[in-house]
Amino acid sequence: MPFLKNAWYAAAWADEVRDVFLTRRILDEPVLMFRRENGSVVALADRCPHRFVPLSMGRRRGDVVECIYHGLQFDGAGACVHNPHGGAPPKSARVRTFPLVEKYRALWIWMGDPPLADPSRIPDFSFLTDEAHFTTITATSRFDANYELITDNLLDLTHVSYLHAASFGPTDIARSELEVRENGTTIHCNRLCRNDLSRPPIRNALVHHEGAVDFWLDMRWDPPANLRFDIGVTPAGRPRSEGLHSMEPHLITPETAISSHYFWGDSRDYMREDPGLSKRYIELLRAVFDGEDKTLIEAQQRTMGTPDLMALGPVLLKCDGGAIRAREILSSLIAGEEEASKVR
Amino acid sequence: MPFLKNAWYAAAWADEVRDVFLTRRILDEPVLMFRRENGSVVALADRCPHRFVPLSMGRRRGDVVECIYHGLQFDGAGACVHNPHGGAPPKSARVRTFPLVEKYRALWIWMGDPPLADPSRIPDFSFLTDEAHFTTITATSRFDANYELITDNLLDLTHVSYLHAASFGPTDIARSELEVRENGTTIHCNRLCRNDLSRPPIRNALVHHEGAVDFWLDMRWDPPANLRFDIGVTPAGRPRSEGLHSMEPHLITPETAISSHYFWGDSRDYMREDPGLSKRYIELLRAVFDGEDKTLIEAQQRTMGTPDLMALGPVLLKCDGGAIRAREILSSLIAGEEEASKVR
Amino acid sequence: MPFLKNAWYAAAWADEVRDVFLTRRILDEPVLMFRRENGSVVALADRCPHRFVPLSMGRRRGDVVECIYHGLQFDGAGACVHNPHGGAPPKSARVRTFPLVEKYRALWIWMGDPPLADPSRIPDFSFLTDEAHFTTITATSRFDANYELITDNLLDLTHVSYLHAASFGPTDIARSELEVRENGTTIHCNRLCRNDLSRPPIRNALVHHEGAVDFWLDMRWDPPANLRFDIGVTPAGRPRSEGLHSMEPHLITPETAISSHYFWGDSRDYMREDPGLSKRYIELLRAVFDGEDKTLIEAQQRTMGTPDLMALGPVLLKCDGGAIRAREILSSLIAGEEEASKVR
Repeated sequence: MPFLKNAWYAAAWADEVRDVFLTRRILDEPVLMFRRENGSVVALADRCPHRFVPLSMGRRRGDVVECIYHGLQFDGAGACVHNPHGGAPPKSARVRTFPLVEKYRALWIWMGDPPLADPSRIPDFSFLTDEAHFTTITATSRFDANYELITDNLLDLTHVSYLHAASFGPTDIARSELEVRENGTTIHCNRLCRNDLSRPPIRNALVHHEGAVDFWLDMRWDPPANLRFDIGVTPAGRPRSEGLHSMEPHLITPETAISSHYFWGDSRDYMREDPGLSKRYIELLRAVFDGEDKTLIEAQQRTMGTPDLMALGPVLLKCDGGAIRAREILSSLIAGEEEASKVR
Repeated sequence: MPFLKNAWYAAAWADEVRDVFLTRRILDEPVLMFRRENGSVVALADRCPHRFVPLSMGRRRGDVVECIYHGLQFDGAGACVHNPHGGAPPKSARVRTFPLVEKYRALWIWMGDPPLADPSRIPDFSFLTDEAHFTTITATSRFDANYELITDNLLDLTHVSYLHAASFGPTDIARSELEVRENGTTIHCNRLCRNDLSRPPIRNALVHHEGAVDFWLDMRWDPPANLRFDIGVTPAGRPRSEGLHSMEPHLITPETAISSHYFWGDSRDYMREDPGLSKRYIELLRAVFDGEDKTLIEAQQRTMGTPDLMALGPVLLKCDGGAIRAREILSSLIAGEEEASKVR
Repeated sequence: MPFLKNAWYAAAWADEVRDVFLTRRILDEPVLMFRRENGSVVALADRCPHRFVPLSMGRRRGDVVECIYHGLQFDGAGACVHNPHGGAPPKSARVRTFPLVEKYRALWIWMGDPPLADPSRIPDFSFLTDEAHFTTITATSRFDANYELITDNLLDLTHVSYLHAASFGPTDIARSELEVRENGTTIHCNRLCRNDLSRPPIRNALVHHEGAVDFWLDMRWDPPANLRFDIGVTPAGRPRSEGLHSMEPHLITPETAISSHYFWGDSRDYMREDPGLSKRYIELLRAVFDGEDKTLIEAQQRTMGTPDLMALGPVLLKCDGGAIRAREILSSLIAGEEEASKVR
């Protein structure tokens, strides 16, 4: 299945891109990112149009990139601004550029038609920059698996009770109330676990309340694979405002058909000044995401032997509802894009 | 060339499969094996029908396998016996099972049509359990080569004089008498070396006889690739009953078209109580099979660049007679199976 | 694109091939080379026609190669001269041989039609054996890249100013005078840099002259990829005979479509008796060729994702003139060969 081209994908966390080059393969294209001297960000195809060597092997001269092989220089708009070999740079000597927008602590890239790149279509992740209410950590992983397998994982959190039983304790999420709602191309999969009496270690560490708790797990998905996770816990029956509350970004970007970048984080509204908690959270979440989810999903990808889950005719369960709808919406958007490209 | 499906393949030595999971790829299918609490053995496809993760990443709950991803539970017959996500398990939630029979110290798997799986068709390897007459060792190797190349190797033992000259000494097997016989789909390649005066180190270690010896090398092949090797030595002219005698299993099972499991062993009727001889035999045979045959056959496979030897038009010699007949019989059985599957 | 078959390729430096076997994949064929007892050289396909194992795993018996698997023996002309399995060797038991000629310190192989192999068509590299005038070093590299990318690199030396700026200093070769001449299928790309005042470290080490220098970089290409580099420096305006002068072989031979053998060296007419200079030159040139060119060209090959540069529509610059002509000549020779093979 082709990728959705006209969509915003997370390309990096903003603090990953500085004056030195950062390169990432995105939708199977090599992309070179850097920050201009004025702080604005640039994304270029990481491939010189002359001899196809990676521009990232070259050097910056101010805001211009010089190819290491024969010295052609390109500006951030992809134009060749210097040809040391005589004559004006050929018109065809252009490097493809990609719209790249800094918003919500992330850099968002548009791999499709540049005029269509409207930053207002980036889904709301404003909690990431809401320093008045949240303390935020961010991190990056890489999975050798198709990106939709990671979406599936996030849209069916019942797996927490099995795959993460040792890390997050014995909570039985499969028995919680699930509400799936759609709003345009946005999907909400919300779970509410009432009167939970389990005491997984992580809850003991955070919740100083002996009795039952309510907790919620609200996942919002926007195509192609940008998810917002709203999770919290209160004493049973109390309003959410009295509880502990985290908002999490889970932004998945295809590297290739069978590998993905995974940008994740956590914004918490509690114990905000604990100097060690942010560090422990990154360690805990990396142990879970890279140690458990990544290991499993990469094995799943190898066992599947194809990026296309649906082609294998999976058995469907109630808990798959949200993930299947997300796959249908994405598939329909991609089909529409394919159709439109044929018309042109 | 496709694999022969309706046939017994060795999947493991019986003592390799205990209560923990053993996984092997067999005929390019991932297979999960374990032993039920009552000691009986089970073989399942190592792939959950829900999300295609390896069931072997999960856990046993008694005789039931629980998938680590979303908690579906399957019994040894492949039926889903527990669905924690509400409702009865879907009918389609079945894992493929494979007939698996424990016989002659080995587990035999049937990758074809289960109703056709008749254990009486397993070739006779009863010496492996004949503890009254034999002391037996077994071991397992894995070759990155097509299984028929290993059959070829075993059906033409003249290679011993060249490939194993350093390990087994200068015996000239190429000059021995060769008899090739067929019996249904069974092939016998028997060699008799009379009045041999060579003194390879292994013979010196075993045979306390100064003069010439007779030795025999009798290989029996049954399709797809189950071989029994009957080897022994006597003082020249004496009956076999007076000599030293070993029976060996050489059971080859395709992992993929270009890799194979190789289950081998040795059952000897002499020096049975020598505490160190069994250990030395395993070391010696592994040095020969993995150090010499495996190295050569893997190089052969790489040089061929295809699993199909005959497609390359090999030069044929007298010593190839048995191996070529085995290839013809197997090829004809596979063609018949393909034909039958078209009719259905 | 297929390889040019009827052409001389460097297979090895003469001193690489002694009595022990040397194996190299050349034009995607496994080749076994050795030196007969009388010193003459032999190239055989490294593949027994019986079971397709590498002959190089076997042993020499005089000038005969014995296969390690079943003992067939082949002479240097590829004929089977011993079959230990009874009967005369089958007529079909022949190993392909390749014309192999020792000339100019190198071994030249002909992978095409043997009757067409005329050693007088080997381009002139006589400086390599001209011990009266030159002190010569030789070495071998291996690049994971198509051979034409290495030709491109050598036919456009402007890259020295960028890729090798740190190693060879700031000389601006892009501004030098370039002359491209053709003579039959031979191309000459000659550059002359007049009145150069740069003082790269290597020049300081060699040229004891404070003022401006002239230097020349004369590259000669013969298909498929045999290049001779004539490089030297004089005080500005003085004749070449007064300067320092090196002649270099750059012989590229396809291993596969995306990997190459690279035989290089240097024959200098100055400081010939310096005991350490030869050693330092090998180290310096290996650091440059393997550390800079190889790293870049392998990244270029990976970024291209195909062996065929022209299929990607590269932007062409003035400095590409020689390389593009070489590609055109080679392409036309290959097309002619393809056409001729259809006629037959």
